[in-house]
Amino acid sequence: MRHRPFLIVISAPSGAGKTTVLNEVKKLCPDLFYSVSATTRSPRPNEIDGVDYIFVSREKFEEMIEKEELLEWARVFGGEYYGTPKKPVLKALESGRDVIMDLDIQGKETLEEKFGKEMISIFLLPPSFEELRRRLSGRNTESEEELKERLSRAKVELAWADKYQYWVVSSSVDEAARSITSIIEAERMKKERVIYPLDSD
Amino acid sequence: MRHRPFLIVISAPSGAGKTTVLNEVKKLCPDLFYSVSATTRSPRPNEIDGVDYIFVSREKFEEMIEKEELLEWARVFGGEYYGTPKKPVLKALESGRDVIMDLDIQGKETLEEKFGKEMISIFLLPPSFEELRRRLSGRNTESEEELKERLSRAKVELAWADKYQYWVVSSSVDEAARSITSIIEAERMKKERVIYPLDSD
Repeated sequence: MRHRPFLIVISAPSGAGKTTVLNEVKKLCPDLFYSVSATTRSPRPNEIDGVDYIFVSREKFEEMIEKEELLEWARVFGGEYYGTPKKPVLKALESGRDVIMDLDIQGKETLEEKFGKEMISIFLLPPSFEELRRRLSGRNTESEEELKERLSRAKVELAWADKYQYWVVSSSVDEAARSITSIIEAERMKKERVIYPLDSD
Repeated sequence: MRHRPFLIVISAPSGAGKTTVLNEVKKLCPDLFYSVSATTRSPRPNEIDGVDYIFVSREKFEEMIEKEELLEWARVFGGEYYGTPKKPVLKALESGRDVIMDLDIQGKETLEEKFGKEMISIFLLPPSFEELRRRLSGRNTESEEELKERLSRAKVELAWADKYQYWVVSSSVDEAARSITSIIEAERMKKERVIYPLDSD
């Protein structure tokens, strides 16, 4: 069944397992286009340029802002830039592919203003705040102070949930990925999106 | 993930394969409650009372109308009554089960007024009008005149589609049933319905 393509924005508090879940969604929905963010921050050892992020210099990023080559962008605490390159997204939509992207609340709100009903928003929730605490503690890569800060940030991020259309609880990676797939499939069947091949008679 | 239960109304023009598809949905979603309509018409040879319809006398049906025991009802061309018993539906919803029902546009509109956002509507479409004609002709149980009348009625019924939230094209029974299942799963994840077990902290 053909449909008018749309944007899928996914947000989550740290520790909800967004990256793992999105990797699973990629496998389940190979027809989706995954928007890759641009950033000025340095790549981490396991990150691949063009896959995890498009890593650019500060000068390049500011040029992209100026030339309006970004759908949304933000300068985060610490001074680094993050943003969504416009061209690949519009090209994918024009070719009939749905586009999925991983954004924070600010980016989601910006895109919602631009895309309106051509966009859906999904918030990935941890099974409980206790579980979120457990997951964040389990990382063991942070000091007690950092963990405390991450937890308090996660709490603020959880409050964003109210602004999203769908809530997916990430009790397991597989289940969360399947849930996201169901949402995308259902949205493709919204009356406004279906291109129905009814032959006139 | 727990959710606030809701009503699922499915309509289709004759020949779209609604009954077969709904039987498949029953297998895929055993947790749904299937509302059985009451009618005054006589059972067909293969129909089971209480499963396909609740078969009642005209007196009984008119008593049900008077006692407001029906969520919606109509008297169709030919004089027979059809309606949805209220009690089983409300009981199922109260116990947390989603309720699925097979209605025409008139019944759907009545229930939408009563249930508002606690209801979703799905229209099952034949792959094309040509295919619908082929399916209706294939029945071979009708005269040329009857077939012509059914086709013209199907055309009127197809025009209802615009009043429904979701369109499912029934290219195959399995695919249509899976599509309906995805819609139900997605609707359970709508923010307004999710009962999120976030422990306060």
